[in-house]
Amino acid sequence: MIVSERDRSTQRIAQDIETLSGSAYTLSTDAIRRYAYTTAYRNTLDYFSRALDRLGFEVYEDPVGTLVARNVPRGEPAFGIGSHCDSNRNGGRYDGTLGVATALEVCRLNEERGLGLPLQLISFLEEEGSGFGQMLLGSRIMVQRVTETELKHSFRAIDDGRSFWEHAEEAGYEPARWRDSVHALDALSGWIEMHIEQARLLQDTGNRIGIVTAIAGYVHADVVVRGRADHAGATPMAFRLDPGLVLAECILELERLARAAGGGTVATVGEIEVHPGLINAVPGHIRFSLDVRGIDETLFRGVADDIAAFAGESSRRRGMTVEIEERQTLPPTPLDERIVGALTTAAEESGEPFMLMHSGAAHDTMCVAGRVPSAMVFVPCKDGISHSPDEDADPADAALAAEIILNAIAALH
Amino acid sequence: MIVSERDRSTQRIAQDIETLSGSAYTLSTDAIRRYAYTTAYRNTLDYFSRALDRLGFEVYEDPVGTLVARNVPRGEPAFGIGSHCDSNRNGGRYDGTLGVATALEVCRLNEERGLGLPLQLISFLEEEGSGFGQMLLGSRIMVQRVTETELKHSFRAIDDGRSFWEHAEEAGYEPARWRDSVHALDALSGWIEMHIEQARLLQDTGNRIGIVTAIAGYVHADVVVRGRADHAGATPMAFRLDPGLVLAECILELERLARAAGGGTVATVGEIEVHPGLINAVPGHIRFSLDVRGIDETLFRGVADDIAAFAGESSRRRGMTVEIEERQTLPPTPLDERIVGALTTAAEESGEPFMLMHSGAAHDTMCVAGRVPSAMVFVPCKDGISHSPDEDADPADAALAAEIILNAIAALH
Repeated sequence: MIVSERDRSTQRIAQDIETLSGSAYTLSTDAIRRYAYTTAYRNTLDYFSRALDRLGFEVYEDPVGTLVARNVPRGEPAFGIGSHCDSNRNGGRYDGTLGVATALEVCRLNEERGLGLPLQLISFLEEEGSGFGQMLLGSRIMVQRVTETELKHSFRAIDDGRSFWEHAEEAGYEPARWRDSVHALDALSGWIEMHIEQARLLQDTGNRIGIVTAIAGYVHADVVVRGRADHAGATPMAFRLDPGLVLAECILELERLARAAGGGTVATVGEIEVHPGLINAVPGHIRFSLDVRGIDETLFRGVADDIAAFAGESSRRRGMTVEIEERQTLPPTPLDERIVGALTTAAEESGEPFMLMHSGAAHDTMCVAGRVPSAMVFVPCKDGISHSPDEDADPADAALAAEIILNAIAALH
Repeated sequence: MIVSERDRSTQRIAQDIETLSGSAYTLSTDAIRRYAYTTAYRNTLDYFSRALDRLGFEVYEDPVGTLVARNVPRGEPAFGIGSHCDSNRNGGRYDGTLGVATALEVCRLNEERGLGLPLQLISFLEEEGSGFGQMLLGSRIMVQRVTETELKHSFRAIDDGRSFWEHAEEAGYEPARWRDSVHALDALSGWIEMHIEQARLLQDTGNRIGIVTAIAGYVHADVVVRGRADHAGATPMAFRLDPGLVLAECILELERLARAAGGGTVATVGEIEVHPGLINAVPGHIRFSLDVRGIDETLFRGVADDIAAFAGESSRRRGMTVEIEERQTLPPTPLDERIVGALTTAAEESGEPFMLMHSGAAHDTMCVAGRVPSAMVFVPCKDGISHSPDEDADPADAALAAEIILNAIAALH
């Protein structure tokens, strides 16, 4: 009985994903590309709206276009589920969309099992930032982490440079009422987002489900080491001030620090820019990026501080100078223990392999969690590949997630 | 008497350089920019031709435009001096041109002192490669280190993409006779090129003159380390294959190897390309360049081989792969002991501080030395800055070089 319900869920989710990969739902034939206020995005919202309407949900869109659907009247308590259905510009079928399809499946199962749980589905606008270069835009608007000036002036469409405000109005929304978006969270008793993992931990450990206990915070910074550009042939080793040596020491030390910190702390040098960048020139200066993350702020902040001190010391020892500038710092988001506990119990009851983990990537749930007790569920994605047309995930895992989420909500009710 | 001769030489060389920095002699007002077959270059050749003509030299240009001037009939033995008067696209006043002006000063002093030494001045075409992207082009044509196919088809103007051949013909030359260029070297008994150092060894050691005993050879190569691109937040340290760690180990090991090799061996990582190059992505693969040089081929070849082995070992140890591809390898060019000895004696007699050194940079003399006993003289350039409008050198050092070169040629005669 349980097995056949999961198979039915798998088929329905697979059908949702297959449909939403069709030409009406993407602006590109080489990848999934859909973002706010395009026809492809409109069609995607309409697909979910029709399905939810058939289940008896009241469906509406908030003042900027975030989709909200409830099976109880507005104002009455409900449990929130959902994700986002926009994609990276060169994206795959699963990032975000699989989470909304799974939330829809939770609604279907609630109906089929006759549980009558009060549910509210949200599909957030512009999680990926493909339309206006702003990640988590819909959820940030909902929790008022933007300013009106940004919406009116700073946030501009990648395609045509016109403002978010202008585009939202043109699409028939009322951006002037953006502060009312927050009311979608007013009566939520909890929130669970399902998402593909975007890494390989679940695959490599053989788990089908990840229950997320926290979303990592991070320090993003740029390090510029200034040495002296010299002719690579004409300058003896002893006469050089080569910032590449400081870069090299920092890369190795950063790895050592992150491993030593433990507790899920990770650190990465993902960008390196060498000036002048010629085979026959000793570099004059080098810029490299730091991405230091974790769920324990003391630990990852410590790594960021230690690497900054190390870069200074390495530069001084070699007669060079260093400047470090933070781009952005975000605290970690602990998730709700009670919801995590309910999910854990439901996962245990499923008999399938699962693990507790944290999310290194950012998600809309980071915004929701400040106002509503929240948790997340991950399913494996093949080889950790995401933000790519090669992205792949198994609808059967999503069906398992739907079952676990529904059972957790029922237990919490 | 010697002092006032040097002062006069200084003034004349300073005047040459000042004139050739004027608007008629450069295509840019922000830098010196002159290359083959442009009006600025034509004017520069004409300036030297007029000055040499006034000294009684027969002046001609070879089939592609290299300037040759002799004070004895063609076919009779003469001692060669000169350099190049084209510039980097964003160049300074001194690179090349100071060497031709100094050679001209040697001719003037020869006349004024009534020495009657048989001299031949050469100003090579396209040493910098600013016109057609081919370094040492004039001297490579002269010693037949090019093919007719390259001249006709492969070598194309950076500005308009048309062939070297077409441009040479349009400028009134006879590229079809390019093989005749070699005859300029037929009757040379020796060759001395004066050039700015393009590094800081002379300045930092307080020497005014460098007598070059050898021009370094080199290995140019590209190293590609392939790891696995992963999400920088979502991928635990233990699950990564980060090619940045191999890069870092190679940079530090390369410096260690070059210092350990000694004998003037130098090694540089001047280019680093990270893919995908995002702050929040563990790099998937990284390409970096190797420039390993020296005057002892066994030593620098050894460093190149050792770093290749190390890169392989470091990659394997970390579960990654590496490919190394050589771009270009050039043997070192030993210079002529007899000419170096004569220059050393002349430098000692000048009473000014000088040193024996090698050239890490490439020069036209690398081509000449295969056919004619050759040497080079370096003068300091401020802070080692070259290939830049900020390039600076002292005409008094060039005047000293002219005196030393003339005395050496007289002693060798």
